[in-house]
Amino acid sequence: MSEIRRDPISKSWIILATERAKRSSDFMEIQREEKTAKSKCPFCGKGEMTEPLDSFAVWPGERVGEEKPIWKTRVLPNKFPALYPSVELVQDSEKGLYHFLSGTGGHEVIVDSPAHDETFATMSLDQLRAIINTYAHRYKFWKLDPRIAYVLVFRNYKRAAGASLSHPHSQVIATPIIPPRISEEMDQVKDYYEQNDSCVFCDILKLEMEDKAKRKVFENDTMFAFCPFASRIPFEICIAPKEHEGSMKNLPKNQVQDLAETLSAVFKKLAKLLNDPAYNFSIHVAPLKTPDLVYYHWHIEILPRLTIAAGFEWGSGIYINVVSPEKAAKELRETDEAF
Amino acid sequence: MSEIRRDPISKSWIILATERAKRSSDFMEIQREEKTAKSKCPFCGKGEMTEPLDSFAVWPGERVGEEKPIWKTRVLPNKFPALYPSVELVQDSEKGLYHFLSGTGGHEVIVDSPAHDETFATMSLDQLRAIINTYAHRYKFWKLDPRIAYVLVFRNYKRAAGASLSHPHSQVIATPIIPPRISEEMDQVKDYYEQNDSCVFCDILKLEMEDKAKRKVFENDTMFAFCPFASRIPFEICIAPKEHEGSMKNLPKNQVQDLAETLSAVFKKLAKLLNDPAYNFSIHVAPLKTPDLVYYHWHIEILPRLTIAAGFEWGSGIYINVVSPEKAAKELRETDEAF
Repeated sequence: MSEIRRDPISKSWIILATERAKRSSDFMEIQREEKTAKSKCPFCGKGEMTEPLDSFAVWPGERVGEEKPIWKTRVLPNKFPALYPSVELVQDSEKGLYHFLSGTGGHEVIVDSPAHDETFATMSLDQLRAIINTYAHRYKFWKLDPRIAYVLVFRNYKRAAGASLSHPHSQVIATPIIPPRISEEMDQVKDYYEQNDSCVFCDILKLEMEDKAKRKVFENDTMFAFCPFASRIPFEICIAPKEHEGSMKNLPKNQVQDLAETLSAVFKKLAKLLNDPAYNFSIHVAPLKTPDLVYYHWHIEILPRLTIAAGFEWGSGIYINVVSPEKAAKELRETDEAF
Repeated sequence: MSEIRRDPISKSWIILATERAKRSSDFMEIQREEKTAKSKCPFCGKGEMTEPLDSFAVWPGERVGEEKPIWKTRVLPNKFPALYPSVELVQDSEKGLYHFLSGTGGHEVIVDSPAHDETFATMSLDQLRAIINTYAHRYKFWKLDPRIAYVLVFRNYKRAAGASLSHPHSQVIATPIIPPRISEEMDQVKDYYEQNDSCVFCDILKLEMEDKAKRKVFENDTMFAFCPFASRIPFEICIAPKEHEGSMKNLPKNQVQDLAETLSAVFKKLAKLLNDPAYNFSIHVAPLKTPDLVYYHWHIEILPRLTIAAGFEWGSGIYINVVSPEKAAKELRETDEAF
């Protein structure tokens, strides 16, 4: 079981998930880069490791009279979860100073493709659409659980970004608290809305679209990808819908198609320009229990892991970025996305 | 030159220091672990690389009639600074959305020892005292500059923690803004003070000292080292003075001695238990321009880099820690600090 603790000084939360330490890859092996052999891959659907996982949701979930279901993506409970849906939600504190919650929540793996060696840069648009639909499905699924305040969908690619298996996969963590990064964003964008009567994301997109392509990476009818003005790390990319929307759970069909196309173009460019770098990918949506918000606009953050966050970043919260977003965007724009 | 930018959504700051990208070690080489050869080390005080650096402050700064000064620590301007003292402080914004400041500030290297191969775990107490006195000296130095709001002293040890040179060294970054991690801490501890009429750090120390050594790592007369209740990563350690003090710039002699002893013990334990791990080290003090505060208590954060912060941490700001601070502290307490 796990536990959620709040730091009395920063008021930020941590999840204490000591059972994950059994995963030897989590610990003391920061330097080693290794591909999971296909024959030992639990996500390829072969071998004993798959058995306990196989019963969970499958997208699109059709069986066609065969022994195994035909699937494009699968949603499996994480074998070493950070949070557990079966744990009753309780909270307590020690002498009014240390607050903690039970480790209630969810932690899932989305197997992004049956093909062991695919990446977002090489997948078909059809496969990327299936992944986007799976993400949307998980928001809807967890919204039904009254204990869950937030769902973070994310993706770690390659060991330098924290991935322990190389088969393409995403992860979903459903938490009983609103994560600090989201609540800070919510506070700030609400302030901006109250002062300016407009969504700050909408205003940013308007500026970036007009801005003679200084930071634009890619766009189509409904999606826009750019390197943010205050990029924390080299080649940071943000993808957002041009039209205001708080969450991606009800994405219209044309936006699913446009997002698939944008992901494909952006990851092809990254792979080509930066030798298929490790990256972290996360989707920021409004908290599950809020009604549709005029001021929160969903977006995707892509953080290539080319540098190491060091003592200054940890200690101060200020990032030192050595590549300007204007230069990064120019190089990405000029990189042909054809493979 | 560099530039300081504020993100319009999170309101957090980044430093854009594109000249640092010339440092090839900063980029695309995340996996490589390498020791700087002694013969090529700019901090050993030999060879042409030392020349432009040699004129800066030296601690204790005595010359004894020889060609080269005898020194225990040296303070040098960083060769690839993130911020520059010679730049006039200006701020501006783009359409009220994007705020930026000139890259005004300071970025220094403290050469922690003349000996190329020493570490905090192997240094003499005398050498550690010299380093602590050098840190205090830099707070006093930068306090005189009216443009500087904060000084962060930090240390990256080994490449996995972001170090690019292996000769023992610390760094100092002086910023014209109060870093977000510090201003958040300030807000929270002020709230706590107003509600409880006491310093939250003092209350934490009281609890940790009473707490049947559950999270204690080491203590002496004036210093206390422990694994924090909400440790973000395995074996995170906090060192704080038992007596309330906002900054370490005027540390009494007995506290300098006790801190040297604590650093020595803590780093000997870490090195022995975890095979001399990479770590980040930073000192949190109250902002330079505030008077002595009843609610802010200086402390040192030590973050061994045994795991990789991945997509969930980046996206949510919540850390998943796989080793409980109670277990980490027990193992560290039971590790003999004798070498």
